[in-house]
Amino acid sequence: MENDLTMEERVPLTATLLLSCPDRKGLVARIAQFVFQRGGNILNLDEHVEKDERMFFTRVEWDAGELTLPIAAFEQELRLLAGEISAEWKMTYSHDRQRLAIFVSKHEHCIREILWLNSIGELDADIRMIVSNHETLRNLGVQYDIPFHCHPITGANRLEQESLQRGLLAGDRIDTIILARYMQVLSPEFVNAYPFRIINIHHSFLPAFSGANPYRQAYDKGVKLIGATSHYVTEVLDEGPIIEQGVARISHRDAPGDLISKGRELERSVLARAIRLHLANRVLPFGKKTIIFE
Amino acid sequence: MENDLTMEERVPLTATLLLSCPDRKGLVARIAQFVFQRGGNILNLDEHVEKDERMFFTRVEWDAGELTLPIAAFEQELRLLAGEISAEWKMTYSHDRQRLAIFVSKHEHCIREILWLNSIGELDADIRMIVSNHETLRNLGVQYDIPFHCHPITGANRLEQESLQRGLLAGDRIDTIILARYMQVLSPEFVNAYPFRIINIHHSFLPAFSGANPYRQAYDKGVKLIGATSHYVTEVLDEGPIIEQGVARISHRDAPGDLISKGRELERSVLARAIRLHLANRVLPFGKKTIIFE
Amino acid sequence: MENDLTMEERVPLTATLLLSCPDRKGLVARIAQFVFQRGGNILNLDEHVEKDERMFFTRVEWDAGELTLPIAAFEQELRLLAGEISAEWKMTYSHDRQRLAIFVSKHEHCIREILWLNSIGELDADIRMIVSNHETLRNLGVQYDIPFHCHPITGANRLEQESLQRGLLAGDRIDTIILARYMQVLSPEFVNAYPFRIINIHHSFLPAFSGANPYRQAYDKGVKLIGATSHYVTEVLDEGPIIEQGVARISHRDAPGDLISKGRELERSVLARAIRLHLANRVLPFGKKTIIFE
Amino acid sequence: MENDLTMEERVPLTATLLLSCPDRKGLVARIAQFVFQRGGNILNLDEHVEKDERMFFTRVEWDAGELTLPIAAFEQELRLLAGEISAEWKMTYSHDRQRLAIFVSKHEHCIREILWLNSIGELDADIRMIVSNHETLRNLGVQYDIPFHCHPITGANRLEQESLQRGLLAGDRIDTIILARYMQVLSPEFVNAYPFRIINIHHSFLPAFSGANPYRQAYDKGVKLIGATSHYVTEVLDEGPIIEQGVARISHRDAPGDLISKGRELERSVLARAIRLHLANRVLPFGKKTIIFE
Repeated sequence: MENDLTMEERVPLTATLLLSCPDRKGLVARIAQFVFQRGGNILNLDEHVEKDERMFFTRVEWDAGELTLPIAAFEQELRLLAGEISAEWKMTYSHDRQRLAIFVSKHEHCIREILWLNSIGELDADIRMIVSNHETLRNLGVQYDIPFHCHPITGANRLEQESLQRGLLAGDRIDTIILARYMQVLSPEFVNAYPFRIINIHHSFLPAFSGANPYRQAYDKGVKLIGATSHYVTEVLDEGPIIEQGVARISHRDAPGDLISKGRELERSVLARAIRLHLANRVLPFGKKTIIFE
Repeated sequence: MENDLTMEERVPLTATLLLSCPDRKGLVARIAQFVFQRGGNILNLDEHVEKDERMFFTRVEWDAGELTLPIAAFEQELRLLAGEISAEWKMTYSHDRQRLAIFVSKHEHCIREILWLNSIGELDADIRMIVSNHETLRNLGVQYDIPFHCHPITGANRLEQESLQRGLLAGDRIDTIILARYMQVLSPEFVNAYPFRIINIHHSFLPAFSGANPYRQAYDKGVKLIGATSHYVTEVLDEGPIIEQGVARISHRDAPGDLISKGRELERSVLARAIRLHLANRVLPFGKKTIIFE
Repeated sequence: MENDLTMEERVPLTATLLLSCPDRKGLVARIAQFVFQRGGNILNLDEHVEKDERMFFTRVEWDAGELTLPIAAFEQELRLLAGEISAEWKMTYSHDRQRLAIFVSKHEHCIREILWLNSIGELDADIRMIVSNHETLRNLGVQYDIPFHCHPITGANRLEQESLQRGLLAGDRIDTIILARYMQVLSPEFVNAYPFRIINIHHSFLPAFSGANPYRQAYDKGVKLIGATSHYVTEVLDEGPIIEQGVARISHRDAPGDLISKGRELERSVLARAIRLHLANRVLPFGKKTIIFE
Repeated sequence: MENDLTMEERVPLTATLLLSCPDRKGLVARIAQFVFQRGGNILNLDEHVEKDERMFFTRVEWDAGELTLPIAAFEQELRLLAGEISAEWKMTYSHDRQRLAIFVSKHEHCIREILWLNSIGELDADIRMIVSNHETLRNLGVQYDIPFHCHPITGANRLEQESLQRGLLAGDRIDTIILARYMQVLSPEFVNAYPFRIINIHHSFLPAFSGANPYRQAYDKGVKLIGATSHYVTEVLDEGPIIEQGVARISHRDAPGDLISKGRELERSVLARAIRLHLANRVLPFGKKTIIFE
């Protein structure tokens, strides 16, 4: 995550480390000690071991107000430790608000939820832009004073429009992209430029009813529960690591329209929970799955 | 459902009618009137119209203690009405306990739940026999004083063993068969002999993870909820009309063994609810779906 | 519910009857027959008998497009039937949108949900006014183009302000009042003027934690689930008939602020469901309880 | 927890520490380091800080197979550490199965669930005895080969019978007592002899409907959800720290008997989860509340 300030100028309140590495003895002690010796007071520590793969995962959050060295120096020393234990890691600081872009088509329930939750301080994100392939929801941009970019997509102009979009995203140093019922498939190049940084909401309990018209599929199948799934976007459609899922009960009395209506509450709630987890650095993707440090 | 008493000797307390026919005006009034004019006091009436298919479905339950004619005569007159409106129907009486056979392999959680619930009067069924392809659970038969038949299945003897089983079922006039984690696939002939009278529990949220090892599939996929599905058995494996479904939350901390353990509670609870609905004549199959009059 | 059109001018699509009376034989048949004989095609019929009190309750919905007599004449004949069976009843028509007033203080989550759901056609209500004791949410009125009336309440001016409010309500022929986190207690006179027509949302799982600061009470008690309750307002605070309830799981990690945040999602969802049931004439209050025809 | 083996003879697989103390900097690092330096490989570490009370809580689980010193010596050194940080602590070892007594009256659903779950290895407890004030469930003792002690209670003999019971418990070195719908109130002396070692299941969503006949209370109140609460028993009836709660949806169709039936599934499930958490040393009582390390 980029930042306008130089490292030295920051006064972070809390710092969060997400780290994964091959499992070995003493990792928790070593990492806790590392933080403690540099003046960090650990507020939360969570860890997990995937036994089959012998992989270790941890999330550590500490009060960074009394660190005995500048953040840049801290990160430099952490880099050495990570090298020794072959770890991948990511650090975030409580005063760095992630910069979001929301992609949307015509359905408003998900984006409306996100904009509102952020407006009352529940997400603590910096929503930089709304990108849509339709003009339909421009008014939401006006209402929340967020730039709204409309790039209509036809079969022919898809890559061209994507190129424009990627320019916008890069120009505004976007950290995470939310597909809030964006009804276009992104190209592999686009997806690969934002690994585990694009969050989608699919309106079914994946892997059931992937693809188009999941509520119709659910209706035809006669299931008794409908679902929604929020996941990171990967090259394979509807197959990315799942962050959060939810279900709601339906009955034979529910027509396809009722499923859509019940689904609306489900989708916005599941997507909001997924975004919250992602923004709080509680999600560690691992292979086709996620580890969620709640 | 067959019965040891002749129709005339019965003194039913309540009678229940399940009926479906093409929709037309006045059906509710006509059926309610039909019951009332014969001395029946309607206790519950529920109906549903599938608009696309223009089909009408109803479940009517009445106090049959003061019927002004014998049950046999009542059913005879109902047959005439049904003919006029092209209806399919089924009648049941509160003192007719359905005769059940439970098929099971080695997992005990589902059958144990059913046997116990029935022993405390929650199912009000007449469990006539347990059929298994293993000796493992014979002791449950002893404990509840229910005949236990063991028919080990090999690739070669499947149809032969099925023939033995069907003889047992017919000989004891079994109404409904419960597959309480019975790990064998029944032949189409068997299935077709008991249309909408065989209830299975599948240990996944169908249509996700049909087939073998659903918990392993769920684990590998990294879903955040696991499910169980109870459905009528049809010729196509795991595709019969769904009666009931349930889900439970899991996390990355749950190993495959934990999924199995959480699934146990889910499976027995979902299967028990499905059996309860079926025994109370609250389930009307229609095409690939069910209508549940709760 | 009052209406601008005269009865004869209406062309209702569907009509709904809510009726309760002492139980007796043949009520379902009689009511169904009554509707059928006047050209009504019953779409839904639900009934319930409270055995201890020997009371009968029903909700009947029919296609009123081919009624053989004007609505006014239909209601006149229904009045005669009701007299014979000592029934209380209420009829509504699908093209009569209820006229709502929303009372609110400073919390926006509930009113925002209602306004939005109505704007996308989910409630099908005519929201006529917002009444508040604070200026805080005036902007929502502007945004949705709904008159916003601010009546600040002090200890001294409460009855005076209520008198103003009741004038507004009467002047605009308001059918139902929604207390969307309105933090003032209404006088008994106010409450009694709108029997079963004032819906409140209480932010706890009543009867637990009635009164002030329920989330703080829940936090101090260490419960593992928090709740929300929507109920009709009666003279006794937080004791009116319950329409709908919901719960959410919490843990020791949730500070009081987290309970408030989780509660927000719960409250708006429970209140919206209650309003939907009320507007669809699915709620029949009976004594201290409600019968919900879903 | 007492044990038949001397400390030195044990070969524990995993060890678990529950510890609480006033919060200060570096506690996680210090404790993790303490375990690591003695050869323990930390498998799970969870911690929590109650900010208002400035209290620190942790649960640490480690592979104790390669400890570099005997358990007794380890515990001796831990005692010194605990002294320095003013901590209360408890250690348990994976091969120490807790010794349970189950108290029951006439309702079988809860005890049956516990006995069965333990028989399939889900609880991993050593159920030493069943104590009842009725003969009703003696057969369950026979079936599971567990001693059944019947102490009928009258107003007059309560303390005398309790004295007998406490003799049995002490004689068999019982760790934890499960009140599986035991309908007698224990004396304060009894309760205080087993602090946070007596687990009760109350058949309501406490604090709603404490006291007698909660389902009747719930029915009369017309709530839309019923609940069950498992808690530690303290001197004040139904007021002990809550371990787990659950709810189930009901409607006006449910008679009091249906509430009891639905409650049965809820009670046994909630109690089983609470026992599981307690036996896995995941519950840390703190004041009137519990911290659950899941």
